[in-house]
Amino acid sequence: MPLLLDAARAPSLNALLAATDTTGLEWQVRLTAGAESPVIRGLGTLASAGRHELSFLTNPKYHGQLAGTHAGAVILTPDADRALDQQVEQEGKPAPAFARVVCNNPYLLYARVAQWFDRARRGGADYGVHPTAVVAPDAVLGDKVIIGPHCVIEAGARIGSGTVLGPGCVIGAGSAIGADGLLHARVTLYPGVTVGARAILHSGVVLGADGFGLAPDPTLGAGAWTKIPQLGGVTVGDDVEIGANTTVDRGALDDTVIGNGVKLDNQIMVAHNVRIGDNTAIAACVGIAGSTTVGQRCTIGGAAMLSGHLVLTDDVHVSGGTAITANVMKSGRYTGVYPFADHADWQRNAAVIQQLGLLRKRIRALERSE
Amino acid sequence: MPLLLDAARAPSLNALLAATDTTGLEWQVRLTAGAESPVIRGLGTLASAGRHELSFLTNPKYHGQLAGTHAGAVILTPDADRALDQQVEQEGKPAPAFARVVCNNPYLLYARVAQWFDRARRGGADYGVHPTAVVAPDAVLGDKVIIGPHCVIEAGARIGSGTVLGPGCVIGAGSAIGADGLLHARVTLYPGVTVGARAILHSGVVLGADGFGLAPDPTLGAGAWTKIPQLGGVTVGDDVEIGANTTVDRGALDDTVIGNGVKLDNQIMVAHNVRIGDNTAIAACVGIAGSTTVGQRCTIGGAAMLSGHLVLTDDVHVSGGTAITANVMKSGRYTGVYPFADHADWQRNAAVIQQLGLLRKRIRALERSE
Amino acid sequence: MPLLLDAARAPSLNALLAATDTTGLEWQVRLTAGAESPVIRGLGTLASAGRHELSFLTNPKYHGQLAGTHAGAVILTPDADRALDQQVEQEGKPAPAFARVVCNNPYLLYARVAQWFDRARRGGADYGVHPTAVVAPDAVLGDKVIIGPHCVIEAGARIGSGTVLGPGCVIGAGSAIGADGLLHARVTLYPGVTVGARAILHSGVVLGADGFGLAPDPTLGAGAWTKIPQLGGVTVGDDVEIGANTTVDRGALDDTVIGNGVKLDNQIMVAHNVRIGDNTAIAACVGIAGSTTVGQRCTIGGAAMLSGHLVLTDDVHVSGGTAITANVMKSGRYTGVYPFADHADWQRNAAVIQQLGLLRKRIRALERSE
Repeated sequence: MPLLLDAARAPSLNALLAATDTTGLEWQVRLTAGAESPVIRGLGTLASAGRHELSFLTNPKYHGQLAGTHAGAVILTPDADRALDQQVEQEGKPAPAFARVVCNNPYLLYARVAQWFDRARRGGADYGVHPTAVVAPDAVLGDKVIIGPHCVIEAGARIGSGTVLGPGCVIGAGSAIGADGLLHARVTLYPGVTVGARAILHSGVVLGADGFGLAPDPTLGAGAWTKIPQLGGVTVGDDVEIGANTTVDRGALDDTVIGNGVKLDNQIMVAHNVRIGDNTAIAACVGIAGSTTVGQRCTIGGAAMLSGHLVLTDDVHVSGGTAITANVMKSGRYTGVYPFADHADWQRNAAVIQQLGLLRKRIRALERSE
Repeated sequence: MPLLLDAARAPSLNALLAATDTTGLEWQVRLTAGAESPVIRGLGTLASAGRHELSFLTNPKYHGQLAGTHAGAVILTPDADRALDQQVEQEGKPAPAFARVVCNNPYLLYARVAQWFDRARRGGADYGVHPTAVVAPDAVLGDKVIIGPHCVIEAGARIGSGTVLGPGCVIGAGSAIGADGLLHARVTLYPGVTVGARAILHSGVVLGADGFGLAPDPTLGAGAWTKIPQLGGVTVGDDVEIGANTTVDRGALDDTVIGNGVKLDNQIMVAHNVRIGDNTAIAACVGIAGSTTVGQRCTIGGAAMLSGHLVLTDDVHVSGGTAITANVMKSGRYTGVYPFADHADWQRNAAVIQQLGLLRKRIRALERSE
Repeated sequence: MPLLLDAARAPSLNALLAATDTTGLEWQVRLTAGAESPVIRGLGTLASAGRHELSFLTNPKYHGQLAGTHAGAVILTPDADRALDQQVEQEGKPAPAFARVVCNNPYLLYARVAQWFDRARRGGADYGVHPTAVVAPDAVLGDKVIIGPHCVIEAGARIGSGTVLGPGCVIGAGSAIGADGLLHARVTLYPGVTVGARAILHSGVVLGADGFGLAPDPTLGAGAWTKIPQLGGVTVGDDVEIGANTTVDRGALDDTVIGNGVKLDNQIMVAHNVRIGDNTAIAACVGIAGSTTVGQRCTIGGAAMLSGHLVLTDDVHVSGGTAITANVMKSGRYTGVYPFADHADWQRNAAVIQQLGLLRKRIRALERSE
């Protein structure tokens, strides 16, 4: 990837780590004897990083890439550090030139350093309300907010201090966003939606559209439906990130609830009156039908679907593509995806699927006749 | 949920029912002896409603909740009403304090009352065109329309009387929306799209994007595609609701057609030249491939997919997550979802799936050898 | 469908074909003796076209429709042309009245003629920047661009000459679009996105939202996640079309890459660091998880899903609804969709699925006891 910072603005490795939030991490820098702390202008993989980039090794199976990397510095575990020393000793070759950052949790330290770069490359914020934005007179804007071009903030809406709205966001009447949030371009909050602090909402997110509530109404014709107005709202906790084009519907009577620390990827559908527990992470293209409750610390793989009115307990892990059609009251991993195959093989096996009941009968008959 | 109306604006139960459209319903209010008709400020479930809220009982299995509800009034069936009387008599306890609304169809009456509240809480409309909207000189706007901030109405477009466009809607050249429609923020109609009366279109809906029409064009390179322009449009009937981020593509030559009374949930994909019959309801995340025809009064469960060039007759009900890959010419319910299991169990069973043809042979061999 | 052009602007068949790009095609017009080249005002199917419309026959199984069509002209293969002659001769009836366009590739010629009509009906472009658009002073706009109402072009962004932006598009800081592109209403490019020439991006497309990168961070609480900033970008080649509400996430460190000539349908999700090879076409509702590489000239059917960190070689064809959960290193067609059935049949067979391991054991026991 391109370098993130100009040489003039880039810190030394030691300065970078001093500026990074390393709460909860143990780390130390090991420079090659006589070497200076390298200037770090960006981050890269072991395979692609150059001499002004910091890289990291988290998975032991990539240990072999250390020998060939051009990275200026590498974050690695104490184990990997020791293994590298032993290897150098055994092979009698000079140690790799990169500076080592030995850390008990390289992946987390990498995340923290990346967060520093992410802030650094954004540069100074330009607080204020763009003149093309339409802000209701009684909307309440915190200090240091940024309201982008063509935003619409309706009556009584509240935007917490330090929160940034990209171009074209719409905040419905009476809705509220907490402090230090980041709404990318074209996020829509219907009225009656409450979002906590430090939210990250991506483009195309829609919070609070009507749940799919219909009652059969024979007075409108055979098979016709009348709308059940969705009078609840949406409540989203703190530290929630929601991916592009994901939709969370408002509740029928009570609210749809997204807990603290929940992470939703792109193009997810959360139906009315769903409840998602704290720190649950859901990958892209998942659909959760109405009134289902997902516990805390769950992970749901991409394109999984959850039927309505179910309960999933805490610490449930659903594999991608799996349809969960019944309650899951025991923590663990659950899977239900049809195995793919070469098309001709699939045809042969799929044909048998539709005779499985019969096949079982035939086995039973054979067993009886023994 | 929070109360919907201030005490000052809230009606008595009797006034509320008089103001509600109860066409086709039989109902009567039963107050406890000497009690006044309670003031109703909102709606709630039996479990959550308070004394100024109206609740309802539709499913007999929740009958037991009647005893403990704090609701000021409850809609219930004549059967439930009688059962409650008997229960009170047998147990010798005082009757529950709530007013009863005895009705032959509680769910429909609840829907109608909710519709009244939904209108009441919205308050008076503020007709007119927002000054930031861009409206072509030859666009035709009906009376009492509301065109929100940053809307764009292109040349020759027509908006029916009473129709409301939320912020940021785009109505393409020559497209038309009927009367009394409600387009939430950021709905896009391409040119050549016609929508009937009383439409409800949610945020992020896109009607009339190009269908996925490609022809192999070897002159552009091996395996290259050229675009087949999509020259048809989209025709949507009356009383249609379309959920957030749902897309309906325009036809290649003829139109894509959505019938009257069709209800589409969020994140649905309707491909070019699909036809959906009247009063069919489709849950979220469904994909319907090109040129497939779905009959009237069908229901399609969430995350189902329909292959292209199929016909589904009337009154077909597809379970969630099911892939429909062949015509369905007989009404009824169809399902095809792989059953999920604990991951280890799944691994064991999925491995056998890929040997099913072989397994059948082995059974046959055993049968022959008997 | 309605006629595309007024009679006054419509060309004769010969003029139309002369104006159409027929590179790489062999074709000739056969008029009925004495007939003039018909005026062509639009295109239609054999069943619906009228006398001022051009139709086409590509699939021999519809040959029978030639006898009854009202089309003014029909594109057909030399084989179909000969077969029609023989049929006329055998039946002794007069030849159909339509003009014939005999061509070695009718579908491609139809695509090219449709492209001509598509340009013709759009009429003259109205170059320029709409006064409501917000364009950064240092953005670079090519000549003959159209920037629609309420667009936002951020600092340093570049728009190639001849490119059109519909209403409400947002082009992030430093992003670039090549020449002759068409962005429909409400397309969003985050910063750091590069799109090649002749792109067609449909409404609701989001390129460059953050990939779903999370690291467990126990310092934030049990099971809590911290964000891994997504510092890479998105690179999209030339001649790419992307359907409505499709999202392509930016890379974590390196870019997410969409090759030349790639065609993506609606509501597709392309996760971070995915790479899609040239001329691959992907139908709607597909999800591709992070770091997966798809080869050249692949086709992926609707609602398929690809797990992360996989490799699919060139010329792989995945059937709709299939979950690809392992590398595919051999070209060919792959399928894995559970066959649907009448609900009661499904229940019976699905129950057996969960006993397949057991069933296999029972067969083994029977085999042993023989």
